[in-house]
Amino acid sequence: MNLFRHELRTTADEDVFPVTDLVRQDVYDSGIESGIVIIYSPHTTVGITINENADPDVKFDLLYGLDRIFPRSDKGYQEEDGNAFAHLKASTIGASETVIVEHGRLILGLWQDIYFCEFDGPRKRSFYVKVISD
Amino acid sequence: MNLFRHELRTTADEDVFPVTDLVRQDVYDSGIESGIVIIYSPHTTVGITINENADPDVKFDLLYGLDRIFPRSDKGYQEEDGNAFAHLKASTIGASETVIVEHGRLILGLWQDIYFCEFDGPRKRSFYVKVISD
Amino acid sequence: MNLFRHELRTTADEDVFPVTDLVRQDVYDSGIESGIVIIYSPHTTVGITINENADPDVKFDLLYGLDRIFPRSDKGYQEEDGNAFAHLKASTIGASETVIVEHGRLILGLWQDIYFCEFDGPRKRSFYVKVISD
Repeated sequence: MNLFRHELRTTADEDVFPVTDLVRQDVYDSGIESGIVIIYSPHTTVGITINENADPDVKFDLLYGLDRIFPRSDKGYQEEDGNAFAHLKASTIGASETVIVEHGRLILGLWQDIYFCEFDGPRKRSFYVKVISD
Repeated sequence: MNLFRHELRTTADEDVFPVTDLVRQDVYDSGIESGIVIIYSPHTTVGITINENADPDVKFDLLYGLDRIFPRSDKGYQEEDGNAFAHLKASTIGASETVIVEHGRLILGLWQDIYFCEFDGPRKRSFYVKVISD
Repeated sequence: MNLFRHELRTTADEDVFPVTDLVRQDVYDSGIESGIVIIYSPHTTVGITINENADPDVKFDLLYGLDRIFPRSDKGYQEEDGNAFAHLKASTIGASETVIVEHGRLILGLWQDIYFCEFDGPRKRSFYVKVISD
């Protein structure tokens, strides 16, 4: 098997969850030694990103910085009471990440984690992990 | 065949076009059952993104929100009368998206479409679709 | 061989380096004729992007525009004296790019180069290039 689906329930308006361990397990379960892995969100108000795992402030600052440029409310939004801010963050961060696999392991930098970013919660959410062998 | 090229002519300064049906057809024509598909823009003032397909306001709000952070004119741009704003939007949204293929179909969320984003039109444009089997 | 690692030493706080020729050489050395290539940064304050290669102002304007939305200092950052700005730029630009390979060559637009973006230098850095055959 090389396609995996994970479910999660977010508990706040916005949050950032590390999913690296789940992706590592999927790569292990796939048995694939060399290739790439794609982490994909099927939602339009979620982003997948790779960023620092050590300092918890980075998580806060990511959400703060994105809120600063895409405020929850703005007179210019067509859908003024809607969630335009969350769609903008999703397209800015992106719906997926691609990571290289070598010797059955993710090639991540020492400080890198893969994050699931909730921009319009709380909701029941999911994401996919697809491993491609070369 | 697993590489496809599509041409389009944009008609406004900025616009957002769904290309999901073209990508679906390419995946079907490739005959590939399981793998990934890459949608790639060869332009430097275009972005490829995945976002909501249901509410037409989202399209407007995406362009509005990006214009708000990267205005068309700003004294700080080196190339003040140029299209720096469009290059910034292209790098923020990104030149490509990767989508998972399973049982010959795209794994997209119910509300997701794949969009070609024109940031400096109107122009004759193109994009590529590459299907990779696993 | 289809996995390559490159080292570079950045010399400024922020800078943008074309790495297209290195990626071209790696694709050639892999011997792969058709597929995709992933350019990946293992750092949390670096981005990989694709943008214009002709006008040197574009490089300046990219850094200027990102600094405008994510200033180096802001009272809202939890880590006020840290490098939140660089983490935000890294997640906005993204840790990787995927480019299509056909007839052993990169499918890039005439004006496109692949760029390594330093957002918190100067430092010793690296990036990976992975070629996947179809």
